[in-house]
Amino acid sequence: MMSEKRELKAGLDADSDVLRVNAVSAVATFGPEAPLALDSGVSLSPFNIAYQTYGRLNADKSNAILVCHALTGDQHVASRHPITGKAGGWWPLMVGPGLPIDTDRFFVICQNVIGGCMGTTGPKDIDPKTGKPYGLSFPVITIGDMVRAQAMLLDRLGIKDLFCVIGGSMGGMQVLQWAAAYPERVFCAIPLATAARHSAQNIAFHEVGRQAIMADPDWQGGDYLGEDKNPSKGLAVARMAAHITYLSEAALHRKFGRNLQNREKVTYGFDADFQIESYLRHQGMTFVDRFDANSYLYITRAMDYFDLAAEHGGVLAKAFKNTKTRFCVVSFTSDWLFPTSDNRQIVHALNAAAANVSFVEIDTDKGHDAFLLDEPEMFATLTGFIASAAERRGLGR
Amino acid sequence: MMSEKRELKAGLDADSDVLRVNAVSAVATFGPEAPLALDSGVSLSPFNIAYQTYGRLNADKSNAILVCHALTGDQHVASRHPITGKAGGWWPLMVGPGLPIDTDRFFVICQNVIGGCMGTTGPKDIDPKTGKPYGLSFPVITIGDMVRAQAMLLDRLGIKDLFCVIGGSMGGMQVLQWAAAYPERVFCAIPLATAARHSAQNIAFHEVGRQAIMADPDWQGGDYLGEDKNPSKGLAVARMAAHITYLSEAALHRKFGRNLQNREKVTYGFDADFQIESYLRHQGMTFVDRFDANSYLYITRAMDYFDLAAEHGGVLAKAFKNTKTRFCVVSFTSDWLFPTSDNRQIVHALNAAAANVSFVEIDTDKGHDAFLLDEPEMFATLTGFIASAAERRGLGR
Repeated sequence: MMSEKRELKAGLDADSDVLRVNAVSAVATFGPEAPLALDSGVSLSPFNIAYQTYGRLNADKSNAILVCHALTGDQHVASRHPITGKAGGWWPLMVGPGLPIDTDRFFVICQNVIGGCMGTTGPKDIDPKTGKPYGLSFPVITIGDMVRAQAMLLDRLGIKDLFCVIGGSMGGMQVLQWAAAYPERVFCAIPLATAARHSAQNIAFHEVGRQAIMADPDWQGGDYLGEDKNPSKGLAVARMAAHITYLSEAALHRKFGRNLQNREKVTYGFDADFQIESYLRHQGMTFVDRFDANSYLYITRAMDYFDLAAEHGGVLAKAFKNTKTRFCVVSFTSDWLFPTSDNRQIVHALNAAAANVSFVEIDTDKGHDAFLLDEPEMFATLTGFIASAAERRGLGR
Repeated sequence: MMSEKRELKAGLDADSDVLRVNAVSAVATFGPEAPLALDSGVSLSPFNIAYQTYGRLNADKSNAILVCHALTGDQHVASRHPITGKAGGWWPLMVGPGLPIDTDRFFVICQNVIGGCMGTTGPKDIDPKTGKPYGLSFPVITIGDMVRAQAMLLDRLGIKDLFCVIGGSMGGMQVLQWAAAYPERVFCAIPLATAARHSAQNIAFHEVGRQAIMADPDWQGGDYLGEDKNPSKGLAVARMAAHITYLSEAALHRKFGRNLQNREKVTYGFDADFQIESYLRHQGMTFVDRFDANSYLYITRAMDYFDLAAEHGGVLAKAFKNTKTRFCVVSFTSDWLFPTSDNRQIVHALNAAAANVSFVEIDTDKGHDAFLLDEPEMFATLTGFIASAAERRGLGR
């Protein structure tokens, strides 16, 4: 539906995106009998959740790990992406046989968030009331809504308790929300590179991205799907701006510096003279092939709205009152999107709630994206934490 | 020319912008006898330089201070802006009677840079060869070109030597270029919050802004003036993204935090729920009333290209070999666009060149824009440095 390029890349037939996605992901359908009660007061019904699972659920259903994806992630955490064709998913170093999240031992579930565009119901889907894509008539969703939907899928799958909930960035927000909303269902929780509330600067960057999308005339007030258009230029600009925030100045300097792109000297023009320009343009262009612009608006909004303390009288510790969940909080020194100070606030609140919490700040120059990359100290930390928790859970060594 | 709003705001008649600007600024015209030799190899002719002066040049012409403006600044450093109507110019706390740059003692000159849009020749002006606005046929300019043009104006004004050259951000780049290109003409130099070369991250942010402008269909491949259009949405997005980089996370948190804009609770929509969103949108909207989108492309490109060491065999100290200029370098702790490390590189190079240099890092949470704001320690530093240099120059106390 989006572009010929997309189908060609994925080597797929020219069916709609939803069918494409559904062909490779399991999809749970929630009908009128099971509406999703949103924080906005709206009741969303019907809705679908697309998800992937890896490994086997054990007999007493005690070995389930829920992986929560970030803003532009999806359910393909550890398997081939149906659009990009990227093998191994978005966390290939973390989830798989013998990896920290060991699919030989654990049953791993990853769900596309509500509002997403990879098979779970979002603004690009058909509103049954009108027969047209929702567009901006899709209700605004929150991190709480994402987690509530995830819990409904787990109920459907008959999984009462999660051994572990893990995620970075927006995935980490969901981890915190899980621990706060369903403390009895979470044995251990691993929020990475995240915050209990979105900062003013982060809201600002999201607002720039949204304005870039809305400034694109092909956005059509959100109705681009009905008009057979796509605000790909605006979405690419949004992605470019965001992508800078995922890296660090040091990493950019190390990877690109002021190196020129396939040329000996500057051209005195507006081509991508510098490698960093070429790289960013590539990031923008490839993103629009796999992501829906309205989903980007909705999911950034959900992150902006996230403020876990606000739901508990402004005291974050109250969100974790009497929790028995074991926490492992991880931050990265060069992450300026969710700096260590944001992660430390979570740790302080957990300490104030007398929770069982480990905290590791990992020294790296890779910026926010470090949680997705090859960070041996992170793997060692999480392998140890998960193994120890599994033993406590009676899952053996 | 740009919009009715602009004229109404400034309380001016509906003449063209150029006439408006010329009506309040002095303009020097350089005809075929005085082309500007650009670094690109192009010879620009004819061209105009619009400038403002404050104070009086003394008899031996030894009390001139050149103020260099930043990316979106202009010649109105200390007087009413003709478009925004803002009294006092862009540096009202720095330049004026009794202020650090004391217009009772010094003759202050501020020129709109080549490529600008406030009266100096830039892409919005008519190319005499075609009778149409230059648009993207305007040659790409560099910081070196800006400074070369400034020197030509000083020659025209009969000012051989400058007592001082001062500027922040891109203005600081010009200061460094002045000191390197015309060491005999600069008695003292004050680069603030700047760098001897633009970093990969800064190039990246500029590229996002340029892509936002170019993604706007009203940009028309750069020919919007001929088509009576204006890529104001794209330019506003560019400004919003850039504006975030001028502030600090701490300042954003202090000023806005997660405060809501004239409402008790979030609206579950895409309005500006948060004050930071409303503030950013305002920054974007007001900017397009006073700035030309193509000028934004050209001036950001000039900053990207700036790499003073590259012109001297990769050794920055060589740019300042045998310099007699006295330098005062100032950085700000919370400036992440031109962090102290960038400024310190300048100091190290000056030390390696055995130059006379003072360096002050000022503790502030105001970010890059601190150099434009009320920073008592900066004023005290500059007042002392300028007074001492003036005495050495024989300008009295």
